[in-house]
Amino acid sequence: MLPEQERTQAGGQTDTADTQGRRKAVTAPDVSGAIVVSIDAMGGDRGPSAVVEGMSIALKANPALRFIVNGRESEVAPLIAQAGIGAACTLVHAEAVVTMNDKPAQVMRRGSDTSMWATVEAVRDHRAHVAVSCGNTGALMAVSMLRLRKLPGVDRPAIASFWPSFNPSGWNVMLDMGADVRADAPDLLTYALMGASYARHALGLERPRVGLMNVGTEEHKGNAELRAAHELIAAAQDRGAYDFIGFVEGNDLPSDRVDVIVTDGFTGNVALKTGEGTAKMASRLLREAFTSSWMAKLGALLAMRALKRLSARMDPRRANGGVFLGLNGTVVKSHGGADATGVAAAIELAARLAKSGFADRLAARVASAIAAGQDAPSQMASNESAK
Amino acid sequence: MLPEQERTQAGGQTDTADTQGRRKAVTAPDVSGAIVVSIDAMGGDRGPSAVVEGMSIALKANPALRFIVNGRESEVAPLIAQAGIGAACTLVHAEAVVTMNDKPAQVMRRGSDTSMWATVEAVRDHRAHVAVSCGNTGALMAVSMLRLRKLPGVDRPAIASFWPSFNPSGWNVMLDMGADVRADAPDLLTYALMGASYARHALGLERPRVGLMNVGTEEHKGNAELRAAHELIAAAQDRGAYDFIGFVEGNDLPSDRVDVIVTDGFTGNVALKTGEGTAKMASRLLREAFTSSWMAKLGALLAMRALKRLSARMDPRRANGGVFLGLNGTVVKSHGGADATGVAAAIELAARLAKSGFADRLAARVASAIAAGQDAPSQMASNESAK
Repeated sequence: MLPEQERTQAGGQTDTADTQGRRKAVTAPDVSGAIVVSIDAMGGDRGPSAVVEGMSIALKANPALRFIVNGRESEVAPLIAQAGIGAACTLVHAEAVVTMNDKPAQVMRRGSDTSMWATVEAVRDHRAHVAVSCGNTGALMAVSMLRLRKLPGVDRPAIASFWPSFNPSGWNVMLDMGADVRADAPDLLTYALMGASYARHALGLERPRVGLMNVGTEEHKGNAELRAAHELIAAAQDRGAYDFIGFVEGNDLPSDRVDVIVTDGFTGNVALKTGEGTAKMASRLLREAFTSSWMAKLGALLAMRALKRLSARMDPRRANGGVFLGLNGTVVKSHGGADATGVAAAIELAARLAKSGFADRLAARVASAIAAGQDAPSQMASNESAK
Repeated sequence: MLPEQERTQAGGQTDTADTQGRRKAVTAPDVSGAIVVSIDAMGGDRGPSAVVEGMSIALKANPALRFIVNGRESEVAPLIAQAGIGAACTLVHAEAVVTMNDKPAQVMRRGSDTSMWATVEAVRDHRAHVAVSCGNTGALMAVSMLRLRKLPGVDRPAIASFWPSFNPSGWNVMLDMGADVRADAPDLLTYALMGASYARHALGLERPRVGLMNVGTEEHKGNAELRAAHELIAAAQDRGAYDFIGFVEGNDLPSDRVDVIVTDGFTGNVALKTGEGTAKMASRLLREAFTSSWMAKLGALLAMRALKRLSARMDPRRANGGVFLGLNGTVVKSHGGADATGVAAAIELAARLAKSGFADRLAARVASAIAAGQDAPSQMASNESAK
């Protein structure tokens, strides 16, 4: 029998009950209907105050949130008290902090007393639905892989991010953004399955459109690995409940013809940072233009409202949160430099995923697609597509 | 003895005399002091009229230019007559045209009657100093490699482009933008040598700063190939007359701390198109913002001059022209969709490179660096750095 199908957020299925027996129910803090987020209070560039302020913003928007706050008690407790959110928080003391310069291997070996480790541990122990950290990406991925373990059938986990696009939601999903610098054809297929599942839950798309990043859209272009991935991803469309649109290019990233863009972590990371760098350059030049003369300044004043809307549309903080996919549990990586608004956005994303039972549904999707691919592709595909 | 050193454009050395015996002097059209550009009149998205108009613009700015115009006589001759530039042009009839959909291998086998082939042939036969085409990139690279052959010591030629930056010149140089989807460590070293030489001639930088693209700036990051390339490029700094700043990331592309960014053709192509896509999205959203209300429209009117300057600063046509590096001769690839302004920019770049004797100096630089690397690295390095 097939595992229960994923359902989109729009489909109204929000229970986190486990239909697979893979994960126990979350046991604490014991509030019925609560969404428990384990959060790393330390390790971000702006320290615990930005994190606690972000928690406070997220809690106002979503009172069902509960936090397991991991960090140095002497620093974090006063901030929680000051924010007046003590009733929603369980503080877990962790003495050590992972810095941005710590190497992943060091943290894996000697990091068990860090707030990052404790944050992930709460998801492993089923005390929390989801984890959020602003810390060192490489270390967070290493600790997450070590403690949560990879899903059956997943060889390389991935980091998925939102990318501003002309789609109705304003976003598309891109992965891998840098979990692993390499990906072979089966990994890229796994990314397609996981990315489609993520787009279903985070963006509410029933059947996302998946594209594979290449340097040209013709089928003969690119290297042999990409051509092999093209075939695998095309063949798994019905199993994965997505439409494959073939190769896409860098200029398709903001396009409204694709929802999920699949690539290896090296290319994804370079693209992400190139896009950020270009947007920053454009905004700096725009600011310079609007302060270059009194006429321009007056013009900026008149266009203020429109420019503010534009700036909100391009605000990277709105899209804050890379999600680690392919593990037994969901981990959201907030930008290291995130302020309170950015942290709140990452918490809200984590809560949305927890509420839709994303972790279990993703696991079921990958397991069924891989089983179908191995055993009886055509029959399983027709089962799934028949719904 | 060392080959004659390259000199920067600023150094005032503009002769194209061959100190190596590698290339014969250009023999026709016989105008002393003229710069002869072989241009492909066909194959661009806007047809021969944009090309001829671009030639006319470039000729006004630089009356020393002479053109070998390759294309269908019946179409091109009337345009040249109409533009009144017949005295500067030698028309070479070519019946066939390479389209954007033609595969490189087809063109290599059966393309000898195309305007693209004829354009490259004029550089091979020393009738022209440099070639310019708006046609199909893959086919142009294939024909250029077949007819001009790779420089001794170059395994993979590269395409170098300008990228808008905060450097004083407004640009930096990035390569490879897509000549080859792969590059191993020795190729990346060759790109560093060629890119530095190109930045010296095209941007007038005595000792360009070279960075190697990676997903993190720490030396332990990235794959083994990149770490090996890091060592090779660091060791060749003096031979290549550049400063190596180590790894850079996608967000360093517009940075003023680097002049030449070295990467493989897959990553470079994705980055180029991602940057273009992001800039286009920003400009579309800006246009929408400025037409969203009458206040915003009035504001745009007042800020018009500043906005026009901004738009000129970001205008991709100003940077039109990817240069093929690593061949016996210089080929400039203009954007397929280039209008007359874009074509003129590509011609002006080609003329600047021809005038500075770039092709020969690049060849000398690569040959000497490779010889030094093979034979006596330390001694040669000290010879070169002593000048």
